[in-house]
Amino acid sequence: MRFTSEQRLDDGVLERGFTLGEVPGILWTPGSRSAPAPLILMGHPGGLHKMYPRLAARARHAAAEGYATATIELPGSGDRPPLPAVDEARADLRRALQAGEPVADEVVERLILPLVDQAVPEWRATLDALLDLPGIGGPVGFAGGVIAVAVRLAVVEPRIAAALLFAGSYVPRAMVDQARQVTIPLLVLLQWDDEGNDRQLALDLFDAFGSKEKTLHANMGGHTGVPQSEGDAGNWFFGRHLR
Amino acid sequence: MRFTSEQRLDDGVLERGFTLGEVPGILWTPGSRSAPAPLILMGHPGGLHKMYPRLAARARHAAAEGYATATIELPGSGDRPPLPAVDEARADLRRALQAGEPVADEVVERLILPLVDQAVPEWRATLDALLDLPGIGGPVGFAGGVIAVAVRLAVVEPRIAAALLFAGSYVPRAMVDQARQVTIPLLVLLQWDDEGNDRQLALDLFDAFGSKEKTLHANMGGHTGVPQSEGDAGNWFFGRHLR
Repeated sequence: MRFTSEQRLDDGVLERGFTLGEVPGILWTPGSRSAPAPLILMGHPGGLHKMYPRLAARARHAAAEGYATATIELPGSGDRPPLPAVDEARADLRRALQAGEPVADEVVERLILPLVDQAVPEWRATLDALLDLPGIGGPVGFAGGVIAVAVRLAVVEPRIAAALLFAGSYVPRAMVDQARQVTIPLLVLLQWDDEGNDRQLALDLFDAFGSKEKTLHANMGGHTGVPQSEGDAGNWFFGRHLR
Repeated sequence: MRFTSEQRLDDGVLERGFTLGEVPGILWTPGSRSAPAPLILMGHPGGLHKMYPRLAARARHAAAEGYATATIELPGSGDRPPLPAVDEARADLRRALQAGEPVADEVVERLILPLVDQAVPEWRATLDALLDLPGIGGPVGFAGGVIAVAVRLAVVEPRIAAALLFAGSYVPRAMVDQARQVTIPLLVLLQWDDEGNDRQLALDLFDAFGSKEKTLHANMGGHTGVPQSEGDAGNWFFGRHLR
């Protein structure tokens, strides 16, 4: 992990850009630290520059509660080399949605599986590097991003103790079975009238999770309309499970 | 409304038993009052004596936040005259559940519709009487109880400004259409693995509500296992909509 930038934000939070191999990322750590800060890995839909304001706001909110947060760029997004096959699948998905047609399983697989296969090892390598830094400790939470990536991570990465999932992107149907292997506490956010999502699949996924403690919060307001109160709900969720 | 008992609880909350016609009920008001207290009507599954500890605990929790709360006995429950046709329908429902058979719509109708038809005017008369008392003011919330009663109340009673619904009892399928007329903010609690309930019907009902602001919280733990954190979620919900 190589730090590429460093700035102290006005609330004392330290923001550091980094690269891990070819993957760019950002790490935010609380201004005042005594004990090692628990870490929240923040997913996003791809495009770090575009997503920066929202991610930084969430990171500062979390830092105020004592959490370190980190994010990395998604494969094929932002300044990373494009993934033409994934872009083609994304275009196919958009065409189907615009035509009001059902989205074929194979389109979802072409879109999501390469992201999962590439992003999950990158997140794990990032986690290795972050936990080697002074002042950052476990337990680790994962929040948001491409839900299929988060599900696979929750299955394969035992250091992740709790996850806040956003059911706002498609999941290959085959992964619903994999969800049965997830046993950590989950808070799943679902935008009920999210037209770019398959509500029934999201409910099937929630049903499939093997976790004894799992909560679904469904709200109105479309894909981007998650109510502000869910930010607090997320903090309370991690407060219960990462402390 | 005739008060039949009065006691000051150790946290200063005033608890008064009352009857309105033949219907017994309980009113809790905060110990210290300045402005009129907003009112939360608390539903329950029937049997005031049995439910008293839970209702009183919720009432004291709400009083600490400045709310008055009130509840009345459900028709056919507790000390009220039995409703043999309803009891028969309840026995039919239990038989179907124990045999693992689907619950027929007509059984749900025989069980729920008489309760709705009788309880809703009783709740409205109670509301008339309560709002005439000094120290109790609008806006009014409704929380819990037989969900079909709450849905009908939310449709016909304009003084109810927000409702916390517990999807823990059956709803006649015909009432799902009525739910479209509900437009007040809603928080709907669903126990995902509640065996004495129809999950898909609960989801259909949530989908049908006409409210722009509606939230579904689904949790594990069976019918009686609503997590404690939902108590706080309920307070925040009413805090946003009754203040």
